[in-house]
Amino acid sequence: MAATAAARRLDVAPLPLGTGRLELAPLGSFTLESGVVLPELVVAYRHDGPAPPAPQVLVVHALTGSADAAGDWWAPLIGPGRALDTDRLGVLCANLLGGRYGTTGPTSPDPRTGRPYGSAFPAVTPRDQARAQWALADALGVERFALVTGGSLGGMVALEVGLERPADVAHVLPIASPAATGPLAIAWNHLQLRLIEHLGVEGMALARQLAMTTYRSEADFDGRFGRRIEPDGRHSIVSYLDHQGHKLVERFAPDTYRVLAGAMDHHDIGRHRGGAAASLSRLARAGTSLTGLGIEGDILYGPAQVRSLVAEAARAAVAARYHELRSTKGHDAFLVEWDQLTAILREALENFG
Amino acid sequence: MAATAAARRLDVAPLPLGTGRLELAPLGSFTLESGVVLPELVVAYRHDGPAPPAPQVLVVHALTGSADAAGDWWAPLIGPGRALDTDRLGVLCANLLGGRYGTTGPTSPDPRTGRPYGSAFPAVTPRDQARAQWALADALGVERFALVTGGSLGGMVALEVGLERPADVAHVLPIASPAATGPLAIAWNHLQLRLIEHLGVEGMALARQLAMTTYRSEADFDGRFGRRIEPDGRHSIVSYLDHQGHKLVERFAPDTYRVLAGAMDHHDIGRHRGGAAASLSRLARAGTSLTGLGIEGDILYGPAQVRSLVAEAARAAVAARYHELRSTKGHDAFLVEWDQLTAILREALENFG
Repeated sequence: MAATAAARRLDVAPLPLGTGRLELAPLGSFTLESGVVLPELVVAYRHDGPAPPAPQVLVVHALTGSADAAGDWWAPLIGPGRALDTDRLGVLCANLLGGRYGTTGPTSPDPRTGRPYGSAFPAVTPRDQARAQWALADALGVERFALVTGGSLGGMVALEVGLERPADVAHVLPIASPAATGPLAIAWNHLQLRLIEHLGVEGMALARQLAMTTYRSEADFDGRFGRRIEPDGRHSIVSYLDHQGHKLVERFAPDTYRVLAGAMDHHDIGRHRGGAAASLSRLARAGTSLTGLGIEGDILYGPAQVRSLVAEAARAAVAARYHELRSTKGHDAFLVEWDQLTAILREALENFG
Repeated sequence: MAATAAARRLDVAPLPLGTGRLELAPLGSFTLESGVVLPELVVAYRHDGPAPPAPQVLVVHALTGSADAAGDWWAPLIGPGRALDTDRLGVLCANLLGGRYGTTGPTSPDPRTGRPYGSAFPAVTPRDQARAQWALADALGVERFALVTGGSLGGMVALEVGLERPADVAHVLPIASPAATGPLAIAWNHLQLRLIEHLGVEGMALARQLAMTTYRSEADFDGRFGRRIEPDGRHSIVSYLDHQGHKLVERFAPDTYRVLAGAMDHHDIGRHRGGAAASLSRLARAGTSLTGLGIEGDILYGPAQVRSLVAEAARAAVAARYHELRSTKGHDAFLVEWDQLTAILREALENFG
C-alpha cells in the first residue's frame, strides 16, 4: 500500500493503492457537463498491484458492473501472471459516476437533503464518468495510464478517458463501443427507460430482459435454449429471462439503471470537440494509440460501428487498429472469451503500453 | 367474377373471385389444433385476376397486415404485368385467422355471447391459420396453388399451407421465415406480450416500437436518423418509434396483437409430424418445391435460419434452393425491395409454378 502523491500534497489521510479491496475516495464537489454540480463526489475503487512508477492500467465497467473487476467480472484477466499482471502492473477499476456500488449515484444520500437522490439524480454522460475517473486518478497520484480499457459503456468511458487527457494515456482499447451511440441502441435504451418509467421495479426487470436479448446472439440462445419448454409450460428462454430480470432487481435500482443507460444515449466523442475527427486528432497529437475491438455477431454495438471508429481514428492519424473477438456469444463476449482477451490485452501492453 | 365450384355444389350464393375488393367468406365452424372449436369462421379475402383453371397464387400477410396485398402492402408486385401478373394468374390473399381486418379474431363478435371475443379468443397457430386458408380455398373452388408465398408470419403460414396439402401446391416461397421460431424471436415476442399484459393499449404501442427495432437494421436507422434531435429534444429515432407505436393503436387491438404474435411462438413445422425432416419429406413426396428467401442483415428471422430450413428440405429430398435479398432494410425488406422480389417471384413461377 502506498501513500499517494496527492494525499501527501494535501496533507490528508492517503488514499490506499494495491489493497485489492473496495476503497472509497471522497473527491469534493464535481461539476457535470450539463453544469449541474454534485456537492460531494465519492468514488468507490479497487486497485491491485504496484503503485506508480509501475505502469498503471485503468479498467472501466459496463452498465450494471462494479469496481470489482479483479475479483468478479474480469477476474480471469487480472492478477499475478494474468493478462493484466499485477506482479508488474497496477490495475485500477472504479465504480462509474451514477453507479450502484459505492460511487455517488441515485442511491447515494444527497448531502443537501440527507435522503437518497433517487429520481432527482441528474443525467450524466460518459464524459462526466471519465472525468470522475481522472478525479480519482489525481487523488490517487496516478498520473498516467499505460492502457485504458472496458467494454460497452465501459469502452465509451475508456474512449473519453483517453480523449480528456490524451497526453496521460498511452493506449486506449474500447471493446464493443462506437464513437457515438447510434439510433438502434438509442431505441433499445428508450424502450428500457420507458419500461422503468411505466412499471418501476417490474419495468427494470423487463428492461433487463430486453437488454439481455441485445447482449447475446441467436446462435447462443439457439444452443442453450432452442424451443425447450419448462415443466411450468413456459419456453426455457422466457423462464431464463424472467430469472435474469428478477436477479437484477435484487441488486440494482431503477433510478441507477435510468442514469447509466441514459449515459449511453449521450455518448458521442465528437460533442463539443468539433466532431469525431477533431476529437480523435487529440489522440494523434499526443501519440496515444488505439485498438478498437469489435465482437462478431454483436447486434448492439457491433463490428461495423467499431470498424468505423477505427477508420475515423486512422484518418485522424491515430495509430489505430481493429481486432475482432470470434464468438457465438454476441455483445457479452467481452465477459466470456478469456483466451482471446488475454492475447489482445497482452499484445496491446507489449506494443503500445 | 366467377361462381365457385363449392358454391355450385352447395347451392348457396357463390363466393366471388376476381373482384379485386374485400369479400367475406362464411365458412362454418372451425376446430383449432388445440381442440378448441370456433362456432363460426368468417374469412376476409381479396382475389384478383382470373379464376381456375388459370394458375392461382396465394399470398399470406405478416403480423399486422390485411387481405389487401394487391392494393396495399404488396401492390407493386400484384397486378397486370407485375410479378404476380393478374392478366394470367389469380392472386388470393386472406386476412389471417385471429386477425383484425375482417377474419374471425379477437375483435369479432363471439356468436355465443354477441360480444367481441376480446381476451377470450383462443391461441392459434400458423397451422390453424394455414387450415383456414385451405377452408377458404375449398369454398372458393381453388383446388391448387402454383405458388404460396408470404413474409415473416406470412412465410410461416405459407410453409404450413404447403405442408398441410403438398399435393395441391407446386411451389412454396417463404420469406424471412424459419422452420421453427427460435428463442431470440420468442424472447422478443414474450416481451411484447408482457407489455400488452401490463400496459394494455399503451403496452401495444411499446410492443410495436420493440418490434420495429427488430424489423429494421442498424444501417437503415443510421442512415435515416443517426443521432438527430427533434425540436422537442427527443432523438429522432425515439420520436419516429413513438409515432409508429401510436399509429398501430389507431388501427389494431391489443388482443389481436397478442393472438398473432403468439401464433409465431407456436411456429414449428415439425410439431406432431415427427420433426422437421419428416414434415419436409411430405413436400418431396408430392413434388412440391421450395425457395427459402433470406434477408441480409435480418436480426429477427435471418439468413442463418432460412438457410437451415432450405438445407433441411434438401436433405429431405425437396427441390429446394436458397435466395437472399440484398438490402440494408433488415427484416422489412420483403415490403421494400420490389425489384429483387419481382425477379425472384417471376423465376419461381417460371421454373416451378
